[in-house]
Amino acid sequence: MSRVVNPCVGEGKGAFAEQVTDIGPGSTIAGLDDDELVVLRQVGDHWGRALGPRQAWLRALPIDPSLHRFPRSLPVSRGRFAAIDFVETGEAGAIVATEHAGAGASRSGRAASRWRRVLLGAPLAGSAVAHERMRKLVALPILSSDALSSVAYGPEAMLAVLALAGTGALGLSLGLSLAIVVVMIAVGLSYRQLIRAYPHGGGSYIVAGKNLGELPALIAAAGLMTDYTLTVAVSISSGVAAITSAIPGLTPASVPIGLAAIAILLAGNLRGVRQAGAFFSAPTYAFVLAMFGLIAVGLVDASSRGFAPAPVVGLEPVEGITVLLVLRAFSSGATAMTGIEAISNAVPAFQPPTSRNARTVLTLIVGLLVAMFAGLVVLMHLDGIVPRSDETALSQLAHHSFGSGPLYAFVQVATALVLLLAANTAFNGFPRLLSFMARNGHAPRLFLRLGDRLAFSNGTIALAIAAAILFVLFAGRTRALIPLYAVGVFVAFSFSQAGMVVHWWRRRDEHWRRNMLLNAVGAALSAIVFVIATATKFSQGAWVALLLVALVVLITWQIRRHYDNVHCALALHPLDVAAPRHPIVPASVGVHVPDGSPAVDRVEDDESPDEVKHLAVVPIVRLDRSSLRALAYAASLGQPVLAVHMSPSDDEAARFDDYWAAWGNHIPLEVVTSPYRALVAPLACYINALRTQRGGLTVTVVLPELIVKHRCHQPLHNGTARRLRRALRRQPGVVITTVPLHLPT
Amino acid sequence: MSRVVNPCVGEGKGAFAEQVTDIGPGSTIAGLDDDELVVLRQVGDHWGRALGPRQAWLRALPIDPSLHRFPRSLPVSRGRFAAIDFVETGEAGAIVATEHAGAGASRSGRAASRWRRVLLGAPLAGSAVAHERMRKLVALPILSSDALSSVAYGPEAMLAVLALAGTGALGLSLGLSLAIVVVMIAVGLSYRQLIRAYPHGGGSYIVAGKNLGELPALIAAAGLMTDYTLTVAVSISSGVAAITSAIPGLTPASVPIGLAAIAILLAGNLRGVRQAGAFFSAPTYAFVLAMFGLIAVGLVDASSRGFAPAPVVGLEPVEGITVLLVLRAFSSGATAMTGIEAISNAVPAFQPPTSRNARTVLTLIVGLLVAMFAGLVVLMHLDGIVPRSDETALSQLAHHSFGSGPLYAFVQVATALVLLLAANTAFNGFPRLLSFMARNGHAPRLFLRLGDRLAFSNGTIALAIAAAILFVLFAGRTRALIPLYAVGVFVAFSFSQAGMVVHWWRRRDEHWRRNMLLNAVGAALSAIVFVIATATKFSQGAWVALLLVALVVLITWQIRRHYDNVHCALALHPLDVAAPRHPIVPASVGVHVPDGSPAVDRVEDDESPDEVKHLAVVPIVRLDRSSLRALAYAASLGQPVLAVHMSPSDDEAARFDDYWAAWGNHIPLEVVTSPYRALVAPLACYINALRTQRGGLTVTVVLPELIVKHRCHQPLHNGTARRLRRALRRQPGVVITTVPLHLPT
Repeated sequence: MSRVVNPCVGEGKGAFAEQVTDIGPGSTIAGLDDDELVVLRQVGDHWGRALGPRQAWLRALPIDPSLHRFPRSLPVSRGRFAAIDFVETGEAGAIVATEHAGAGASRSGRAASRWRRVLLGAPLAGSAVAHERMRKLVALPILSSDALSSVAYGPEAMLAVLALAGTGALGLSLGLSLAIVVVMIAVGLSYRQLIRAYPHGGGSYIVAGKNLGELPALIAAAGLMTDYTLTVAVSISSGVAAITSAIPGLTPASVPIGLAAIAILLAGNLRGVRQAGAFFSAPTYAFVLAMFGLIAVGLVDASSRGFAPAPVVGLEPVEGITVLLVLRAFSSGATAMTGIEAISNAVPAFQPPTSRNARTVLTLIVGLLVAMFAGLVVLMHLDGIVPRSDETALSQLAHHSFGSGPLYAFVQVATALVLLLAANTAFNGFPRLLSFMARNGHAPRLFLRLGDRLAFSNGTIALAIAAAILFVLFAGRTRALIPLYAVGVFVAFSFSQAGMVVHWWRRRDEHWRRNMLLNAVGAALSAIVFVIATATKFSQGAWVALLLVALVVLITWQIRRHYDNVHCALALHPLDVAAPRHPIVPASVGVHVPDGSPAVDRVEDDESPDEVKHLAVVPIVRLDRSSLRALAYAASLGQPVLAVHMSPSDDEAARFDDYWAAWGNHIPLEVVTSPYRALVAPLACYINALRTQRGGLTVTVVLPELIVKHRCHQPLHNGTARRLRRALRRQPGVVITTVPLHLPT
Repeated sequence: MSRVVNPCVGEGKGAFAEQVTDIGPGSTIAGLDDDELVVLRQVGDHWGRALGPRQAWLRALPIDPSLHRFPRSLPVSRGRFAAIDFVETGEAGAIVATEHAGAGASRSGRAASRWRRVLLGAPLAGSAVAHERMRKLVALPILSSDALSSVAYGPEAMLAVLALAGTGALGLSLGLSLAIVVVMIAVGLSYRQLIRAYPHGGGSYIVAGKNLGELPALIAAAGLMTDYTLTVAVSISSGVAAITSAIPGLTPASVPIGLAAIAILLAGNLRGVRQAGAFFSAPTYAFVLAMFGLIAVGLVDASSRGFAPAPVVGLEPVEGITVLLVLRAFSSGATAMTGIEAISNAVPAFQPPTSRNARTVLTLIVGLLVAMFAGLVVLMHLDGIVPRSDETALSQLAHHSFGSGPLYAFVQVATALVLLLAANTAFNGFPRLLSFMARNGHAPRLFLRLGDRLAFSNGTIALAIAAAILFVLFAGRTRALIPLYAVGVFVAFSFSQAGMVVHWWRRRDEHWRRNMLLNAVGAALSAIVFVIATATKFSQGAWVALLLVALVVLITWQIRRHYDNVHCALALHPLDVAAPRHPIVPASVGVHVPDGSPAVDRVEDDESPDEVKHLAVVPIVRLDRSSLRALAYAASLGQPVLAVHMSPSDDEAARFDDYWAAWGNHIPLEVVTSPYRALVAPLACYINALRTQRGGLTVTVVLPELIVKHRCHQPLHNGTARRLRRALRRQPGVVITTVPLHLPT
């Protein structure tokens, strides 16, 4: 009787199998592969032989499963699950659940569902998924707010580091920004290629996974996840800073304001993609307008004085101009680049032709970003702006060009809004990334579930919580968060571009050399920025980001291992159909001496119906209606039944024996005495002892359970059935059956 | 087909049936009454006819239930519930659980159990209950610490009210204390009679219940419960005050000190009665010694100056000497009387002859109390003590008599300890009272459960929590708590003494006139004190106590109603045995049109095994090992089986149909499409629709469930089985069967 060999092949199997293109609701259920189908047929044949004439008996249903013959006679008004929750389509006769069916069972569930409809809108059917796609002019503001808005803090972060070396060092900003622009363009070009190669949406995670393997993919994904979370925290804190620069009185309330903003973003994104787009377009366009207006006015202003830099307020140098300082300034400025990757993850959300539209939008975004970044740095140099702690550099610039009138106000409002909404990019990317990971088994499967508004609600909620925690921990201070920021995103950039290099090398189709070179440059530059950012800011907070990345990699790796185990455990095994493994022993033979082989191993092997050896055990505390119903249920199964009474003392045991005799002793009874008054654990021990007496036995524990009508009455009952179920569920081969008795009031 | 009439008689039945004398562990399981036994025999006869020859089949167990034939071959080391947890007594062959069996199933449960043994000691068997009784000299300190220690705050509370009317009013204390002593003696005499009449332990709750009815009993019980909780809070806060009087530096830490004291009391009482006694005797005796020493030295001192009162520090009168003020002072002083009732509840904890020992101890306590109270009031008068906020009156007295030497320290330490331990009386009384109430169905049944140390652990824990909340809410200030205090206890006194009056009137045996008169005086005096306390202090906090009493009465009343409903629902009904109600329909007849009568009503009537009409429903998401095992289990029951697949889209449904056909279509399949992606609610709706098609159908929902090995893996699975179980448990006639598949890792 050898154990059937587990046919599951090695770990990595299917880790990055070809992507399922459709993110529809059906994709949560994996199909069977060919091997499994073969096994399924074998199992079916075996069942057919095993069941034989009993099959007719199984099929003689006492009801009509299609609900067809009773369309009107169903008692609609009775009970919580009335038939009104269904729609029967006339022609096909198929049973289709309505949107009401999702409301949940309880009264409170229905009330909650009503509130959700008000806040988030009515549920959307899966077929609506195609309509929830973005036009280019909607996609641009949604996906670009992160990238574009980072010019609000990037240049200032760079200047703040340079200012440590005194006024003279500020002039270095022009050279550094040139380097950053080069990296921006290289990364942008790399991502254009990536979108073309992975039109079904391939962020760093997908690209690194397909070309480099599982671990690089997880590192890239972890980098992106930290980056998304930080994007929300940094954008919100920076947006709040724009508000408090204009209205200093609000400074003490910055943390509540930020949390409220996160809550608004959460609600907006749970409503679904399209609404979010319409809702969030305006501020981005307003911000772009404001920035270009600012730059134009500033340049005209500067041209009037022949582009001579304004005199700079004298600053005492705190440090010397070292290479380390310059590199730190560079990596601070590079935070202006965050957000470029958003589009590559979101390709499937574009209107078709998805890939081309996505590339166009990416080109636009990078172009705008480079122009705005370079323009602002040059303008800050010309106007002699010095970073201050009480006012943002952008605000100083706006004061300089526009005074304090309505134009200044427009710049600040647009900046605040776009920064608050930049966080929205992360709300598009993070849940989508998690769903990709969940599909590959790297994240809990619940992130794969589309909400009834077709948004990945669980991922959206997870991001909101994580970002809120980060925001509160750092008390909403942008400068404290910046050192954590560049680490994750450049990890992801590097791995995805490196993946693209491998991609081109493997394909070697037309233009592969040029393409590979482009991506190699992108990868090298990103890696350099990552090393610089980590090395120069390690002690200032970069270690937190590294730790987070490492933790996420560890956890996601373990999750995949667990799902692999589950997959193996659930996969169909080839049956040893030639010889049934457990010859059927007539139950009348009675007690058997257990054979030598350990019983536990075989207990949950595949079985066909004739191989299930039953024993029903009914634990009984008191002979009342509830227990008698459980006994009747157990006896009606036509299998051996054993009643077990737990008794706290011998006297009580004797009394129960009398009752049992009065009843007629129809079923064998065993009394277990528990002088220490424990009930659940001794019973579980006893059932285990029974089960181990004989291999391959399926013990069905039939538990009478009293169901109270109002939840507040629950504490008035000991919940023995619940506790027993919890104690028994660990035992292999123990089936737990709950026979309810409902209290009328 | 008439519904069987519920034989349950009206509500009040058995509300105060004759008390079960034994508080042993067996008493939690109620026996069957004669009517139920008759019905049980009828049911048994019916079963006998119904089962007929199948009975042999039911009895052919595949294992040996007595575990007798396999004493050594059980695989001891395997699994969590090893047979080593059992002891088989050789002769009788009975199966007895060991103390290890209570440790619980999980690893964390076993660890917790090990810690509990260290803190609370090894479990005690039920047979040890007789040993856990108190000798008189142990009972005295345990039960008296509350009553005796209240002289530490009673006289001072009285003086504090009188002082409001200036120095002159302090002289009234002598007269008031005389009145209080009279009430003390009257109440003491009343309780002596009560103990004799109710030797099995009858606090106010029992006595009021037996003689006056349910509502008075609940009012008395609610009064006592508030009183016990306040005893803990007041004693602890007063004890902490004694400490901070001596060491003023500790004042800021008073709340943590008090909470720590409550925690220590909790642990001590969870260890059980006897240990608590040995542990807590010394301080009470020390306190009595200290008080009498103080009084003796003070009187000798006063005699040396001819008992002339010392000059009093001048106090400005804030109020005039009104009747209201005097009455308020009286009710404040009467708090010295709290705790007298403790003994009447604790009679069964005495060594036999319980009743006589209890009365002796009560007499001793009242004698000590009167002597100490009167002595202290007189001494305070003679020494001219004026209440101050920074030092207790007792501390002033001790300073006056003993200076600041070791004798003063002894008084303060003894006072602090006895006050902290006075709370212990409540820890004896409260859980016992709750257990009496639980036996009558007025409190959740879990308060009836004896812990493995034979203490009513749940009640002990409940008191600790309630007192801690009260203590923290009032920030441990004794003066704020005092106005709440006297209300509850005098409610209880009044109702119990009134109950005794009725008792004597009903019996009218020897000396009944004298006994009745004694109790009538006690009742009248207690009622007067209650009215005074409530009226004079209503706005100062007495309303809180009244509200608490009212709430407790309401809740306990509702609890009893619920248990009555449960009792009726569980009671055995006379079977309509002549004509079986659900004639067995051969399953091959197929689909039936439901008859006119509403199906739901009959579903959970008593049934014998042949009357159970089965339909097994197996919800299936994916065809894997887990679902196939569930299908095999369902099919092996030999009853009709229907498989239900929930599908998010028509495409997916078609794919599943293909799989089903490949398997061989052995079992009827119905596909329910859920375009809104909800799974649980539509399935529950569908099953409800099936069930209502035909009356009296028992639908067994067979749920495949994946059991993960480590709890941290739980969130990785959707928990559909769990959610479905929760949604289905509300439906009548639905039996839920969980077929587990255990993950190997």
